[in-house]
Order: sequence, then C-alpha cells, then structure tokens
Amino acid sequence: MILTIRVLFSLLLLLTSRSYADDGYRLWLKYDLIKDAAKRDAYARSAQFIAVTGNSPTLKAAADELQVGLQGLLGKAVPVLTNAGNRTGGIILSVGNGPVAGAQLRTQEGYQITSRSNNIVVSSKSDAGVLYGAFALLRQLQTLQPINALSLTSDPKVRYRMLNHWDNPNGTIERGYAGETLWKWYELPERISPRYRDYARANASLGINGTVVNNVNASARFLTAEYLGKVAALANVFRPYGIRVYVSIYFPAPKVIGGLKTADPLDPEVRKWWADKTKEIYKLIPDFGGFLVKANSEGEPGPQDYNRTHADGANMLAEALKPYDGIVLWRSFVYKADPKADRFKAALEEFGHLDGTFDKKVIVQVKNGPIDFQPREPFSPLFGKMPKTPLAIEFQLTQEYLGFATHLVYEAPIFKECLDSDTYAKGQGAPSSGATVAKVVDGSVDGYPITAMAGVANTGSDRNWTGHPMAQANWYAFGRLTWDHTLSSEAIAREWIAMTLTKEPQAITRIADMMLKSREIYVNYNTPMGLSRPWTGVHFAPEPWQNKSPRPDWTAVYYHRADSVGLGFDRTEKGSNALAQYNPEVQKQWNNPETCPLPYLLWFHHVPWTKKLSTGRTLWDELCTRFYTGADSVGWMQQQWAQVKGSVDPETYAEVAGRLETQHKEAIWWRDAWVLYLQEYARKPIPAPFKKPERTLDEVKQLVDVYLLR
Amino acid sequence: MILTIRVLFSLLLLLTSRSYADDGYRLWLKYDLIKDAAKRDAYARSAQFIAVTGNSPTLKAAADELQVGLQGLLGKAVPVLTNAGNRTGGIILSVGNGPVAGAQLRTQEGYQITSRSNNIVVSSKSDAGVLYGAFALLRQLQTLQPINALSLTSDPKVRYRMLNHWDNPNGTIERGYAGETLWKWYELPERISPRYRDYARANASLGINGTVVNNVNASARFLTAEYLGKVAALANVFRPYGIRVYVSIYFPAPKVIGGLKTADPLDPEVRKWWADKTKEIYKLIPDFGGFLVKANSEGEPGPQDYNRTHADGANMLAEALKPYDGIVLWRSFVYKADPKADRFKAALEEFGHLDGTFDKKVIVQVKNGPIDFQPREPFSPLFGKMPKTPLAIEFQLTQEYLGFATHLVYEAPIFKECLDSDTYAKGQGAPSSGATVAKVVDGSVDGYPITAMAGVANTGSDRNWTGHPMAQANWYAFGRLTWDHTLSSEAIAREWIAMTLTKEPQAITRIADMMLKSREIYVNYNTPMGLSRPWTGVHFAPEPWQNKSPRPDWTAVYYHRADSVGLGFDRTEKGSNALAQYNPEVQKQWNNPETCPLPYLLWFHHVPWTKKLSTGRTLWDELCTRFYTGADSVGWMQQQWAQVKGSVDPETYAEVAGRLETQHKEAIWWRDAWVLYLQEYARKPIPAPFKKPERTLDEVKQLVDVYLLR
Repeated sequence: MILTIRVLFSLLLLLTSRSYADDGYRLWLKYDLIKDAAKRDAYARSAQFIAVTGNSPTLKAAADELQVGLQGLLGKAVPVLTNAGNRTGGIILSVGNGPVAGAQLRTQEGYQITSRSNNIVVSSKSDAGVLYGAFALLRQLQTLQPINALSLTSDPKVRYRMLNHWDNPNGTIERGYAGETLWKWYELPERISPRYRDYARANASLGINGTVVNNVNASARFLTAEYLGKVAALANVFRPYGIRVYVSIYFPAPKVIGGLKTADPLDPEVRKWWADKTKEIYKLIPDFGGFLVKANSEGEPGPQDYNRTHADGANMLAEALKPYDGIVLWRSFVYKADPKADRFKAALEEFGHLDGTFDKKVIVQVKNGPIDFQPREPFSPLFGKMPKTPLAIEFQLTQEYLGFATHLVYEAPIFKECLDSDTYAKGQGAPSSGATVAKVVDGSVDGYPITAMAGVANTGSDRNWTGHPMAQANWYAFGRLTWDHTLSSEAIAREWIAMTLTKEPQAITRIADMMLKSREIYVNYNTPMGLSRPWTGVHFAPEPWQNKSPRPDWTAVYYHRADSVGLGFDRTEKGSNALAQYNPEVQKQWNNPETCPLPYLLWFHHVPWTKKLSTGRTLWDELCTRFYTGADSVGWMQQQWAQVKGSVDPETYAEVAGRLETQHKEAIWWRDAWVLYLQEYARKPIPAPFKKPERTLDEVKQLVDVYLLR
Repeated sequence: MILTIRVLFSLLLLLTSRSYADDGYRLWLKYDLIKDAAKRDAYARSAQFIAVTGNSPTLKAAADELQVGLQGLLGKAVPVLTNAGNRTGGIILSVGNGPVAGAQLRTQEGYQITSRSNNIVVSSKSDAGVLYGAFALLRQLQTLQPINALSLTSDPKVRYRMLNHWDNPNGTIERGYAGETLWKWYELPERISPRYRDYARANASLGINGTVVNNVNASARFLTAEYLGKVAALANVFRPYGIRVYVSIYFPAPKVIGGLKTADPLDPEVRKWWADKTKEIYKLIPDFGGFLVKANSEGEPGPQDYNRTHADGANMLAEALKPYDGIVLWRSFVYKADPKADRFKAALEEFGHLDGTFDKKVIVQVKNGPIDFQPREPFSPLFGKMPKTPLAIEFQLTQEYLGFATHLVYEAPIFKECLDSDTYAKGQGAPSSGATVAKVVDGSVDGYPITAMAGVANTGSDRNWTGHPMAQANWYAFGRLTWDHTLSSEAIAREWIAMTLTKEPQAITRIADMMLKSREIYVNYNTPMGLSRPWTGVHFAPEPWQNKSPRPDWTAVYYHRADSVGLGFDRTEKGSNALAQYNPEVQKQWNNPETCPLPYLLWFHHVPWTKKLSTGRTLWDELCTRFYTGADSVGWMQQQWAQVKGSVDPETYAEVAGRLETQHKEAIWWRDAWVLYLQEYARKPIPAPFKKPERTLDEVKQLVDVYLLR
C-alpha cells in the first residue's frame, strides 16, 4: 500500500511537471523531483526531518524553504520538529555562539554546514545566517552534490549586498527591459502580491540583504507618509528573508514636500527636517536600511546648488541616521557638460579631494567603470584613490548597453574583470599588488568599517522576471559574487545552469561555454577594442555617426573620436591625461599604445588606421575582424543552443532560440553600422575573407531612424 | 484496470488543480474538472469524439480547443476524428451551406449548435463560425447547462468587433493599469510569446474579430517595414482565431517616414504614398483589417493642417484600401481649446455636416459619450444625427476614470445604458422609438453597410491580464455585447462568474449582485448626478479644485461650474444649448431641471444648492447623501466578498479583498475631496446622519499633491 501511494505520488509529480511548461517564474529555486532514484534515496536518508528551535519569522522561512524544497526534490514529505531530541538522520537548524554554531565564523551572517552525530547541522550566529545556510544546503541537492559529509564554512565578504531598482512611481523602470516595476504602488499597502515574497526568497538564496526600491532619479513621493506606508508594507514581506529596504531620495525634498525655502544641507531647518523624516521612517520601518542618493548629476539637484559639497550633503543625511542602524549610499556618478573636459575624469575630480571628509555612515557608491556601464570599461580610478572612504561598487545587471532583453550576455566576466583588476592602491607588488578592486571594496585593503556592493536590477513584472531567460543568470551571478567575489564565472554559471536549465553534464558544459564566451562575442560586434557609447537615445540601436545632442558628452563622436588619421580617445598625457588618475603601475599597463592590451586600446589611445597591432593586423583590419567574427559567433551560439534542445524545457528552449535569432540579426546590424561608418574615415576595403555589408550606410541609418521615431 | 487508471487520473487532476494557486492567467477559459460526477458522465456520453472534416488552421483551433476543454472538464481524453462515419454520441464540426450547416444563419460568422442523429452538430458557413460555435458549446459545459438537446442559432449583430490597444512602442500603455504592452516589439518577429495565442483564444471565445495593435496617439514606426514585419508576426498568430490586425496611423507619416514635403490628403504624391504603403501591408498581411485614425485631436496632426476635412483624410485612406478588404475607422473624438465653447458639442459640430461625404469604406468611430469615458455620460448626440455614415461605438474597458486597477467597477451596465438609449433618430414612438444607440450602431436604423464596435482594451502584461481580477469581466462583457448587444448585464455577469470564479449558485448570486451595483456605487462616491472630470493629471486622484491647465477644457472647474449659487453645467438654451444637438424627444427628457432624471441633472443644468429635488432633499443634501452612501457601499462590497471566501480560489479571494480595501480608502478620499470643496460654495453643513470628514480640505489636497509629484 505504501509502495502504491509512493508510485502514485511519483507519477503525479512527473505528470504534473510535464503538464506545465516552464515559464521561468521559479528562477533557480526549482525543486523538481531528482530523477536518479538512488541519489534521491541517499539524500532522503540524511533528510528525514528538519529540526528548528525558536520560531522567528526568519527561522520559519528557513524551515519552510527546506521543507518545500525537499518535498519537491525528494518527492517525500519531511516533518519540521521543534527539537531533534535523540533522532538522527535529519537536518538541524541552529542559532547561537555555542560550539555547534561554529566558532570559526567571522560574521553574523555567515553559516556553517557540518555533519555531527549523524545529523546535518546548519548553524550561524544569526537567524539570517541559518536561512542562508538552508539555501546553501538546498543548492547542494539541486546541483546533485553529496551531503553526507558536509563541512562548509561561509562568511559574506561584503556587509551590504544590494539591488538597486530604478523603478518609477508610474510603474515604468528606467533602463528596464523585463516589464514594469515589481512594486504595485497603486495597490500597496493593502494588497500584497505573492510575488514580493518570491522576490525575497530569490534574493535571500543568494545572500542579497538590501533593496533600494526606487529610481535614483528619485520621486519625492517616496518620502511622503503615503508612500512610506507602501514601502513599509514591502519591508514587512522582506524582513523574514533578511532583506532591508532603502529608498533613493530627491535631494530638494525639504522644499518640495516639506515646505521649506531651501534644501541647503547646512541649513538647520533642513537638517531638522531630515532628522524628523528619518525618525518617521524608523517608526514605520524599524530595520530601514538607509538612503541612496544621486545628486548634482545629469540634472538632478544636489548640495552644489547651494555651494556645498557632496560631503556636506551626505553628512547631513548621516547625521539624521545617527540614532539608527542605517547608512547613506552617495553616488559618485557625476560629470559636467563641458566639451573640453574628459568625462572619464569627472568622478575623481569631484570626489578625490573629499576623501576623509565623509561621515562614517557614508559609503560612496562608484560605478565599476569611469563612464557608464559600457560593455567593457577599465575600472574606475576612484578604487585606487579613496583610502579613507568606504567605496561601494555599482554594477548594472539590466542590459542597458548590452542588447536589452534580446541579447545573451552573461555578465559575471564583466564583474570579475573589474573586481580582479589590480588598483595598486598600496604600490607595487609581483606579480600583482593584491590590492584588487574587490579587496578595496571588501575593505581588506583600506580597512573600511562598512562595505557594500550594489547591482542595478534587471528584474521586472515579466513572468520570468528578467525578460531573457538567460538574464536570470546575471542576477544570480551578481548575488553570488556579493557574498563571495572569489567565485569563478564558470563555477557560478555551471551552478546556475544545473539549478535552472538542465542537470545533464554535457548540456551544462555546452551552455556554460556559450555563456562564458557571450560577453566577448558581444564586445566584438558591438564595441571592440575599447570603443564605447555609440548608442541611440534609448540605447538600443547603433549610432556611431551621432554628433548632435543637448550635451557634447552625449554624442557618439565624443567617445570614439574617429577621424581621417585614426580612432580612439587619447587619454595619455598628450591627450586628456585621464590615465594619470590611476596609480603608476596601472598607468604602465595602459599608457603605451605598443603594449596596451588590445581590449583597452581605444579607451586610451588615438590609433592610426594603418598601425600594425600585436595580432599582425592593422587597426582597421583588426577592427573588421572583430566585428565580423563577433557577429558570426552569434551564429555559433545558435548552434550550441540547438544542440541542447533535448536537455532543456521546450518553452525555454524556444524562447532563447527566438532571442538568439534576433541577436544575430542585430549583431550584423551593429557590425554593418560600425564598419560602414568607420570606413568613411579609414578609406580601406573590408579585408578578406569578410564580405562587405549587403547594405549601404544610409540604409543602416534608415533602420536606426525607425527606432528614433516617437 | 481501466477503472484504476481513471481513478488515478481523476486524483491526479484534483491534486494538480489544488497544488497550483489560481493566478488568473486562464481567464474564463478554465477547464477544471467538473465536480459533479453524474453531470460529467452525462456530458461525456454526448462528447465521445470530435469529428472535423477539413484541416484549416481555424478548424484545427476549434477542434484543439474542444479537445483540451473536454479533457479538462470531463477528465477524459476525447479523440479527434476526420470523419464521424456512422458513429454517434459525439461532436461534429461542420462548415458549409448544406442543411446541417444551418440555412437560418444570416451571417458568415454565425453558428448553429443542434442535436442531430444523436450527435451534436456545430455548423456555420465559415471556419470562424465553427470556432465561435465550439467556444459556445464549451461555455454550455463550463456553466453546467445541458447539452443533450441543444438548438442554438447565433449571429453576430455587428460585423467588426474590435479591441483598441493604446500601446506604445516603448512598452507602455496609455491609460493601461495592468502592466506593459502584451506585444514585445523588441522580440518580434523572431520570438513569438505563447501569450499571443492565449490572447487570441480569449478574444475568439467572445467573438472579437479585430485588434488595433497600437495607440491612437500613433507612432509612425508602425508603418515602417521593420514594424510591419512585427505586426505581421502577430497577425500570423491571430489568423487561425479569426482575428484581423489593424494599425493606428500617424497622419503625417508620408512626411515623417516617406520623405514627402506634405501630408495633404488631396496631394497626388501623398495619395500614391498611402496606396503604395497599403499594397506593401497587404503583401505581408493578406487579411489586414485597416486603419484607425486620431487626427486633429489633442495635438495630433490631421487633414485640417492642410485646410482639408476629416472626410478628405478618411477618403484618401479608403481609396488606398479600395483593392482590399480593409476599412478606415476615423475617430470623432475632437475638440478645440476654446474657453467659450462647450466641448460637449465639438464632435457633432465638426462631423455633422460631413454626413454623407465619407467613402463607403469609412466608419466614424464615436466614443459612447460626448466628453471622455466618464463614469456616467449621456450618449453622444452623433448617434442620432449621422444617418448616412456608419458609426462605430467606442467604449473604454481600461478604467481610466474608473479607479484604475484598484476599483471594482463592472462596466456592462455602462455599455448597456448607452446602447439601450433611445436616439429618436427616426422621430417619436411609444413608449420608445426603437432607434436605440445599439440599433444605430448595428445598422438596423439606418441600414449602414458596415458596422463596428470598439473597446479600448484593459489588458496588459500582468499575469492575470487586467490587473484587477474582476476587470476580466469587463473584457468579457464587452466581447459578448459586440456579438449580441441584447444580452443583459446580469446574464453576462453570471456566465462570467461561473466560468471564472465559482460554480456555487449562492456565491454566483452574491458576486453578481455586487458587480451589478458596483458602477452605481462608484458613480455615487466619484461623480454623482452628472458631475464629471475632476481628476488630477494622471486621472487618478480627486481634484475638483483644479483650475489651471494648458487648456481651459482640461480643468475641473470647466466641467462642474460650482459657484455660490449652485452646481452643474447649463446646457439648455440659456446655457451652451448643447441639448439642441439631440432629437426633440431626447431634449424633452433632459431639458427641464424639474423632470430631468437625477443621474443626468448636472450634465445639463446649473442647479441651486437649495433646490428641492424629487427625492425630497435639497441638491446639497442629495449630493452628500450620494457621496456618503457611495463610500459606505464599498464597505458593503467588502462584506459581500467576505461571504464568498470559501467559494473562490484563495489567491483570487485575497487579491480582490486587498483591492476592495484600497477602494474603500479611496472612495472616502473622493467623498471628502468633493464635499469639503463644494462646501466652500454651498456653505451648508453635512446633513445628518453623516459625519463631517475627519480631515480638512487642505489635508485632502496634500494627499492629492503626493500623486502629482514626478
């Protein structure tokens, strides 16, 4: 009888999972029955119960997740007990500082998973750490790793691990390509979408512990009582999952909603307004995270409107937060509309001299590169130059410059390339100084008291969260790296694939290969060798010819500087001398055009078309080679994907295949736009074996113009 | 053994349907197992097979839908045969003009469902008609009606039954409150979302046969080859479901994308451009439906820019469409920014004298009321005054002025109230002339050769399509009324509830009661007795005090005309004399303030605050009574809903309950805004038993201001 029911149940699960196409909603938290019965049984022997003492919402969330996960993966109900007693063969969730709870843990949020007395013990100093451990344990099963002799100790390397949502109150998302905002402002606080909890689960599974709910181009609405009530309702859902909410502030809020005559950060009434507002917030949201600020940037107001500095503004907010456990994240993304200036240098010019003047509750949040989330940028010079100021790194997950939701670009290599860059902040070293961007950010170089990483979210209301099914991997990778930036791009990719797409080893390898190459492929057809920013107004289509704009630094020609001699932005001392913002060892890598690595060449040098490069090709020929092979490589990705057809869900397969087809078309579009445009300066033929584009530059422009129509 | 498998299968279905919360995606096309086994068996005896001769995509869609539907409803697989042979006890789908196919049908799209020789025969003159019949048959089962002796004959009363999507190329929807556009323009044409087909199924199930894919404030993108390719990909998905695509055009397209110097509709080059463009479209989309046009309206360009008439513009497009089976829908929604004028009169003033001058391929599309989709409007005077011009009626399903996606307003009573209004287009009659708006629109009054109804869609990318789960009923009701405007609001509501929410008779009655009263409740707290348009810029919050705007007719005071004497817009001959636009019998109903029905009173009269009304109360007291009882009635709706908790899906229950809570809060907000504002003119106390609002007018305004912040 028992057997019959078990068979029935398995059949049920199999049929159920088959009758529903996978719409991607579950992300990597898929708990489908493990196919290998032996493996299932082995896991089941070690997971006969879940024991948890205490019933905080976070511990309950951990136990619930394990129970649901094990039920799905093993096809059997696992009881949750309040005490293991003498029982063995189960999972014990344990909080505290005792021996079981892992004396080796460095942080409150770290966790250990160990085998003790025939039980698996998940322990931490905090409830949140236990939750992270529970997800880590589930990940072991989802990736088919053994769990019978686990000995894992894991601490997060960074304290504030955050998503930034550039979401507007009207429901749109600035640079969002996966639908509207997840936050239904007109329904909140009365209606709580079940999706909010699933969002929190997904983040907690990665260790993300903060969410800035609104756009950095902020609406003052979010500081009104009306909207704070809505934010508080979200905070209530997120809290059990260890996630704190933050809001982006509109700097002149004291004027706009406070009725004051000024927003001068040194004005006592303004300071009082912020202190009162902060008090109001903490009454509603006792674990409120703090403020994110974009000020005096791209038209947003800020302290400079009152002849005050960024530090004056940030420190005023820090003062308001003083009674509470909250922080200020002040963005360094600033630049002036000066045609003579090099935008590359703006952030350090404005922030460098402020080092040491920020309150200890302030983190300066720095985009990974000096410009703006380009497909490849050198790391921001700030990371080597602000020893007295905690610096957060800001990555962009949403694919503003990476083909929206139709191009497959796995971003972990972008993040890693920056994180692993050596800033030489502490001088020389061999073969490297060890002062990587990652180690600046995690505080190990300068001993920052607080540390943070932020990712501009790629989530939206699309059923699968991220539009492109493969873009889920970027959310995943960012989250995993906020916890541990030493993980490799490949390891993260393989883990994500196994949890999300397929458990077949060959297919995993093939998909991982495609993902790992995807960024370089994109760079090749889009902006090879250090080109940047040739985008249309909406950042969708190629427009290297664009030379008109309200601001000179919002044209394409400002960046690539193509002329009859050559191509690229001279940032050596003969040019803007932006290179001087880096430490000497870094300068040495990049300031000689003969030895500068080709991926960075045009970031720093204006190179003649006929110049022979290390590849043996002239600049022109090398550029063409990259544009053509880049576009062709999308065809290769299509072939790779076709080969995993039998190994992934059919709906997901079709969706990715369709998007790859679009990507291929658009890659050729980018290639044609660039080579036809640059050819007007280079005056060289397309080198063999490549064939010249089938269309004219005018035809390419006409197609681009379509996307510029209102 | 057979029994065992059947038991297993039933259990499987039961468990499956239980393990998934209902997220609303399936709309009313829910084919969950019928709980009553006897009923199931009875149905099963009459549905042992589906026989269909011919394999057109539309017939295949009909057979597929029946097969999937029966499988779900009956829990048994039903085979599809190409020929019934001598078999009985099945369903036969039949196209043709033979005796079985129903000689009584008046139209190509009509269907018959009859019992013949122990089979159920679904017949029509067209494949699409068979599809409509298949959905009608499924509806019988979904609403638990007997099917063993069916004799249904059904013809659509209107030929073009259309949804208008005000969707923009950037993904937003003008006046959309259910997420982003359904059409993924950046993915099309390569990737075809499975959702497109489900959209088509839902529409086909109602008889909707046309979709205008883009906003009437149109982007010229939709006439470029790039976007026509995308539209064609949608058309390919919709075609098997009998749905034709239409596009909204940007009138100056010949200039903007054609490179011409003018868009003058009488210019030969312009006419040639449109003819060529139309040819290009029909090459891609052989069953293209035609063009929808908003011209010389709210800043949109049009023929008047060249001193031509609307007829000149429309007839030019009709000429371009001449070789094809396509039509022009030209909107009459026009009004000038003239503070002296009455916007009410604008449409007839501009279009009345053009009656008889439009090409026979042109339909003039008229909003139901003279202003703009207000919660209650009198019918547009055009419906009684354009005998020589086919008039389409345009309703708005999306709740622009009906509380967005948080207020429960069942719109069928709005549609019916207008459709059943007597225009007296043919003069007197007793008790009515019979020339209702519906009969004008369906052509029976004036013998229009082509007829149409259009609904501005309330669909979006939200999982449940319409944001508010109950708003699905508005899509449903509109669709059913396009097919048959004689259906009652109640019959439609009961049908929809049974298909969508619950089959329990008591719960159906309770929910239907709530739905049927919801519109009057909304009117009462929002704009009672003929008030209109006191909305903020985004049409969300109350703003009766609003008196500044770029246009005088975009202020609130323009509409309500509150002063120390009284309230309301005098449209009698002492005032704007808009009433003179109606036929004399209609004028008689409304032009005397003593006898004008209260729901229309302030539409036509400026009434003193102290005026005693037919209810025995003064105007002021009557207004207060309606505002207060309206807001209180939302509390009643909450109670009604609470009582059906056990009868509907828990997730749906919670979602509606949350939204009702918001609605209650906002209803009180509207009430307070109005009574506090009007009180400044009326200078009367709030009559007992009502208590004066707990907040001041300034406090109400401050809350409104929050929603006006960027």
